[in-house]
Formats: sequence, C-alpha cells, structure tokens
Amino acid sequence: MEDLTPEDISQILNTSKLMKGISERDVKKAPTLRGKTIINMFAEPSTRTRTSFEIAGKRLSADVINISTSGSSMSKGESLKDMVANLEAMRPDLIVVRHKSDGAPAMISRWTNCTVVNAGDGRHEHPTQSLLDMMTILESKRKLEGLNVVIFGDIKNSRVARSNMIGMKKMGMNITVCGPKTMLPLYVEEMADNVTTSLADAVVGADVIMALRIQTERLEKAKFPNAREYSRLFGLTLSHLKKAKHNAIVLHPGPINQGIEISPEVVEGQWSVVLDQVTNGVAVRMATLYLLLGAGLQKTE
Amino acid sequence: MEDLTPEDISQILNTSKLMKGISERDVKKAPTLRGKTIINMFAEPSTRTRTSFEIAGKRLSADVINISTSGSSMSKGESLKDMVANLEAMRPDLIVVRHKSDGAPAMISRWTNCTVVNAGDGRHEHPTQSLLDMMTILESKRKLEGLNVVIFGDIKNSRVARSNMIGMKKMGMNITVCGPKTMLPLYVEEMADNVTTSLADAVVGADVIMALRIQTERLEKAKFPNAREYSRLFGLTLSHLKKAKHNAIVLHPGPINQGIEISPEVVEGQWSVVLDQVTNGVAVRMATLYLLLGAGLQKTE
Amino acid sequence: MEDLTPEDISQILNTSKLMKGISERDVKKAPTLRGKTIINMFAEPSTRTRTSFEIAGKRLSADVINISTSGSSMSKGESLKDMVANLEAMRPDLIVVRHKSDGAPAMISRWTNCTVVNAGDGRHEHPTQSLLDMMTILESKRKLEGLNVVIFGDIKNSRVARSNMIGMKKMGMNITVCGPKTMLPLYVEEMADNVTTSLADAVVGADVIMALRIQTERLEKAKFPNAREYSRLFGLTLSHLKKAKHNAIVLHPGPINQGIEISPEVVEGQWSVVLDQVTNGVAVRMATLYLLLGAGLQKTE
Repeated sequence: MEDLTPEDISQILNTSKLMKGISERDVKKAPTLRGKTIINMFAEPSTRTRTSFEIAGKRLSADVINISTSGSSMSKGESLKDMVANLEAMRPDLIVVRHKSDGAPAMISRWTNCTVVNAGDGRHEHPTQSLLDMMTILESKRKLEGLNVVIFGDIKNSRVARSNMIGMKKMGMNITVCGPKTMLPLYVEEMADNVTTSLADAVVGADVIMALRIQTERLEKAKFPNAREYSRLFGLTLSHLKKAKHNAIVLHPGPINQGIEISPEVVEGQWSVVLDQVTNGVAVRMATLYLLLGAGLQKTE
Repeated sequence: MEDLTPEDISQILNTSKLMKGISERDVKKAPTLRGKTIINMFAEPSTRTRTSFEIAGKRLSADVINISTSGSSMSKGESLKDMVANLEAMRPDLIVVRHKSDGAPAMISRWTNCTVVNAGDGRHEHPTQSLLDMMTILESKRKLEGLNVVIFGDIKNSRVARSNMIGMKKMGMNITVCGPKTMLPLYVEEMADNVTTSLADAVVGADVIMALRIQTERLEKAKFPNAREYSRLFGLTLSHLKKAKHNAIVLHPGPINQGIEISPEVVEGQWSVVLDQVTNGVAVRMATLYLLLGAGLQKTE
Repeated sequence: MEDLTPEDISQILNTSKLMKGISERDVKKAPTLRGKTIINMFAEPSTRTRTSFEIAGKRLSADVINISTSGSSMSKGESLKDMVANLEAMRPDLIVVRHKSDGAPAMISRWTNCTVVNAGDGRHEHPTQSLLDMMTILESKRKLEGLNVVIFGDIKNSRVARSNMIGMKKMGMNITVCGPKTMLPLYVEEMADNVTTSLADAVVGADVIMALRIQTERLEKAKFPNAREYSRLFGLTLSHLKKAKHNAIVLHPGPINQGIEISPEVVEGQWSVVLDQVTNGVAVRMATLYLLLGAGLQKTE
C-alpha cells in the first residue's frame, strides 16, 4: 500500500466494482487475460488467499499455475533468487507471492522484470486484503474520507493492520488502533490518529470496526494468562457495538476465532460484512490482475 | 442415492451415455459449463476420484479449483462451516466434497446455497460410484431391472455397498449381500433381498458380482487371523464364477487388493468390467455436473 | 533419446523454435491441443519440470491435470501398473511421467495405449532436458555437428549426462566427459569420445561446457573429504573458461550449487546460457506435446 497513490487506490476500487459484476453473472468469465500466464507462488500455506487469486485469474481467462514451496528450500535468499530467475525464464506475465519473510515480494520484484503481486509477506503488508477491506467499507458507506475506523487486536504482528493503516490514511480515514500495550508497535502514533488500550473507548462513534485474528500462541508472550482473559479485555461484544454509530459495520480478515477476538453474536449480526469481504477479495484480485496486465499501473504493488 | 428417484437415476444414466461420447472424441471438450466455477474440496486424499471429477469439469469447460484440506483443520464442525461460508462467498457454482465424516456433504449443503456433490463421505454414501456401477452394468446387460447382483466383502464399512444397495433397489435389481458376520451391518435384511455368509451360495445364478475393497487393518477386528485366511473364505475365484450365469460380469470400485478380495485370474478375465467402471466414472461425473449446473436436477445429490 | 533418430531430433528442435515464438507473444496461447487431456504424473517432486510441462500444455490449450504421487504407493510395480490402467481409462491423450525408478516410463508405455513422455526416470534418461540443451546450443552456435562439448561432474548418476551423451552423439557432436573416477560409469568410453579425470584438460578447445548438479550426499561415497575439496578439483572457474574457445558457452540443468560445481563468476558471466535453457525447456516441451498429439512422432519418447 506504501507504493500506491490515492488515485491508484480509487482506480483499483472502481475497477473492482466492475469486476464484481463478472462474478455475479451466470457465465463468470471474461476473455481479458487470455494467453497470460500467472504463477501463484505460495511459500506459506493459505488455502483462502490462493483460491481467491486462482479464481480471479481463471475468471479473466488467464492460465494459472500453482506452486507451493515448502519454506525450507526458499528460506535462503540465494535459492529464492535462483527459483525466481527460473520461473521468470518460463515467461509468466505475473507472479503472486505469499511469503513468511517481510519484504520477500519486493526483493523478488527487484530480481525480475515480471510483474509481482504481494499476497502477504510476514508482518509487513497484505495489500489486496486492505483493498478488499476498503471496497467493502465503500460499498456500505458510499465514501471512505472522514470515516472513523477502529482496528483492534495484535496490531504489532498484523500485516493486515499495517496495510490498512497505510492505505486508509491515504484515503483520509480517521484511524483508531487499540490493543494491549505489548501488541502495539513502536511509533504507532505516527501511523494512526488515535491509540488506546481500551476497546470500550476505541469504539465510541466508530463507523467501521475491524477485528484482527489473534494467534493464540502469541498471548503468552503478551503476558495474558489465557485466551479467556484476552477475550474479556479485547473481545468485541454487542455492548461495544452500542457505543459505535448505529449503522457501524464489523470486518474481520478471517479465519475467525469465535469467542476470542469477537463474540458469535457480533459475527452473525447484520453489521457483519465478513463474507462481503471474501466476495470482494475475488473482485479486488481480478482488478489487480487486470490493471497490472491489461491496463497500466506500476510494476510492483 | 437416498434423494434420487428412479427417474432421476435413469436421467443421469442416459445423460452419462451422451457424455461418454465426448471423451471418445478427438477433441474431448464441450463448451457447456464455460464460466462455471467448480471447487473440488477433498478433505480425504483420493487421487482417482479427484482426478475423475477434475477431468469431468474441464471437459465441460468449467474452471476447476482443487482444495485439499488436511483433516485437522476441518475436523471441527465449526471451522468446516466457516470454511464453506468463505468458499461460497467466492461464488463457485458447485462444490464437490469428499469427507471422512458421514453426512458432511449434507451438512455443507444445508449451510450453503451452492450446489453440493457428495464424492464419498465416511461410511455413508458414494453416489457417483453407484451411478457409474449401474452405468457399467447397463452397458453390458442392456437393463437393470430383475438382474441378480451380489455385493460381497466388508458391507458394514463400505459407502459403495450402501449407495449401491439403495440405488439398485430403486432400479428393481435383486440384491444379495455376502460377508463375514462381523462385516454385515445391523438391519442388513431391510436393505438387501438376500443375505448370506457363504460366497459360494451367494454367486449362484448371479448376473453381476461386485467385490468391495477390504481394508486389511479391519481384518483383525473382524476376528480373522490374516489376509490369507480372509481370502480363502471371501476371495472371489474362478470356481465362484462357474456358479454364476455364464455371462456374469465382475465389478470392483478399486483400488484392488489382488489375491485378497479377488484373484488375479478374475480381475484379468473377460468378465471383468473394472476399467469400464473408471471410464464411466468420468461420464457419470460429467452428467452430474451438467444436470446440476446446466439443466435442472435437485440441489443436493 | 535412445529411440529418437537424428531426423526426429532435428524435427523437434525445429518445432521448438516455432513454439518459442508463442511464449514471446503478448497472447501466449495457441488452440492446437484444445480438447486434449494431459496428465502430469510426478512420482518424484520437481517443481521446475512439472511447472515447465504444465505451462507448455496450457499454452497449447490442453487440459492439464497434475498428480503427485508419494513414492510409497507407487514403489510396487503392481500398484503402479494398476494406477496407470486406471488413469488410461479416464481417456487422457498423454501422460508425462517423472519417476525415481529407471525405466518406469518405458514400462508404463508398454502397459498403456496412451502416449507417454519421460520427464526423468532415476539415473536413466531425461530426454526433454537433453533436447532443451541441444536447442540452447543450436541457438548460440547455429549448428551441433562437430562441436566440442564437455560434460563434467557425477556422470555415473546423472540422467541428464546419459541422455545428452546419447543424443549429442547422434547429432555428430564430439563429447568429452570428465569427473572423478568414482563418478564415471562402466564402459563410459563407449558413450563418449574422450574421458578424463582432469577438468583443466577437458575444457581445452571446448565450444560447450555442461556442468551437472552434484548431490553432496554422494561426495562421501566418492571418497571426497567434503564439498570444498570436490570444488577445488571439479568446480568450473574462470581459469577453466580461458582454456576453452573464446565464445564457449556454459550450461547447467539446475538447480545450481553455486561455489561447488560452478563458481558464481561463471554462472553470472555472458557465457552462461542457464536461463535460456529454462526458457527453451518450455518450448521443447510444447514441441514434444504438439508432435506427439498433433502431428506424428513415435509413441514413446
């Protein structure tokens, strides 16, 4: 999200809206990327994101090749470079990269002339997630600018939080982040408009509430006795929603730990747009592939 | 097979015959399901069935996405529900489900508006296997009604046996089941016309003999000293075939344990239609996909 | 390569040149193999070769199905035969086979009427690798006949070396093989024009230098104290290149152990055609699929 201008983001979101229409048709197929080769290189397992990119590519008629590399052979920078050089030599048009190391897609992009899309790298960025979040907000609120958005949970370790803080700031949103002190990154004040450790305070007047997935193995390091204790302090409940705006919406990047970071009543209520996020994920990825291969956006996203 | 009427079964078998023609062509491709998205969700490994469904979908021009979920993350009902909701949000047209738990595809079908095809669930049903078995019998015998069919082996644990008992009864076939007492289910008399523990008795006058795959780890529970002992009592040999009708045929759902449930001479003889079953498997799956997505059959099969 | 005549090889190389053009286009797609079903059966993991065949098939519009069988279930000859019979019954047009056992693709070819392509079997052959090597040499040198080629490293265990010795001899190339005595096969003199254990001697006057990948676990058996010692004696360096012809080229089948069988300066120099080999790999595989399915070459390659 760091590389994108507000105009880029608007263009992607507008194109995503058109692309969503293709998935709503009876014949979910456009010939746009016929004869293009897309490699899905997932060095970290992720059925959802891989499937979303695969469906996006196929609905635009591209040839999609999946490569799931075990972390081992790709952990050394050198062999990753070698692998990428080899893939590039097979003349793909675009490589989608999921990697556990921060910055791996950016490195790959420097090594190759091929277009590279970041599908999530370590704790760094997850740009298509941020774009699908903004698309979902835009569908519901008709605008982004000026909205109050709360992002809460393990801010420090979340690439979703990071990409959204960067992207939403560019779109003029008013960002509040909330989490236990041990889960807030250094210099978080520079990335968000408000920072608090009280979820009850954070949600007051919110238009958008975005939960993050908690990785339970991190709770111990964060000095929480257990998931129940975490949930008591940082789990989103109906009582929080009453303090938000009456038409506030709730997002979650999934998969959800129900009863930990978010209560079942909240997930299933009418304010939940969690499944719209998934639907919009395919649309945003179609738009990304289309703009990078069919029209002209910059090389790395 | 429980949901299908005899008319449904006839319609699928007639359509399968047309579909088989596509696989015999030089250009094995029809544009029928262009723009449809099919997800192959295999929570239990099965190269054969997955490949059969994948080929069936691609020959009809659908986009086919494979998802192989390790049993672990899907063993909890809740996360399976969550996963299915997420897949549905990506707007597939049909989900093919193989699962180790009885009833998982039916549950999934209730959770989603998407069409669901059962590709084998636990010890419950394997409907496309039963349909391909009946197609193979029909090709050879020109009819189903009134035929004497013997199903023998581990009846209790076999979803193939169960789907066939249900389906063949609907088509008016005369069903004899045979196996050691410990491998016969409760109330088997209600599902079959004849029940016996003697294979020599069972095969007398048979038109169709269907072997089941024995899972050797089950022999011990069934109080058999070993595979050789089992084979002596419940392995199909040439001497059995002599008691069947002179033009009897032999089926097996594969993969075969040669020399255990069936002798090599029987597998390789002219009565064996085992490979026709595999060929017809692709045809039946093409028909299933076509009727559920192109024409109008009921939602769950 | 043993089955191919020099005319066959020339025909494949000429066709590969045409096929390479398709991968250079904006729309990398030809309708040639539309309606053909290709099964990639990889019983040994190989992301590169599998990806190369998958891209080749898809660029020619074939339906490509990947099957990765764990070695276990396929180690028994009988179950491999059974599996192949089953795959054939699904009416694929061509099966690409990678297998750890010498001769497995040839066996499979005898068992089936289906066209079989060897994608590397044990220490026996890797014909498409040899063809892509010759294509790369031809691109650079405009001819094959009369060229001096050096193949060095673990000759005994390399299917790449074996296929190239057979193929290059047919094309009239002058072959020198070089490696430690323990890595030279019996009767190597019958397969190569010159045999030496000195890399410095081997490269004198060479037009083409082909490194092989060393499997470090084999060094111990070959009585080398370690990789550094091996590298000192059998690693290709700039000083070797000075003894070769001034326009000599360097090939490597990948993946490269930089600093062991070849120094980084050599890999990155202008004489290195390693990435051209990868690009040509897709072209050679497209040509192979096309000639076997579209035009008329013999059944097994």
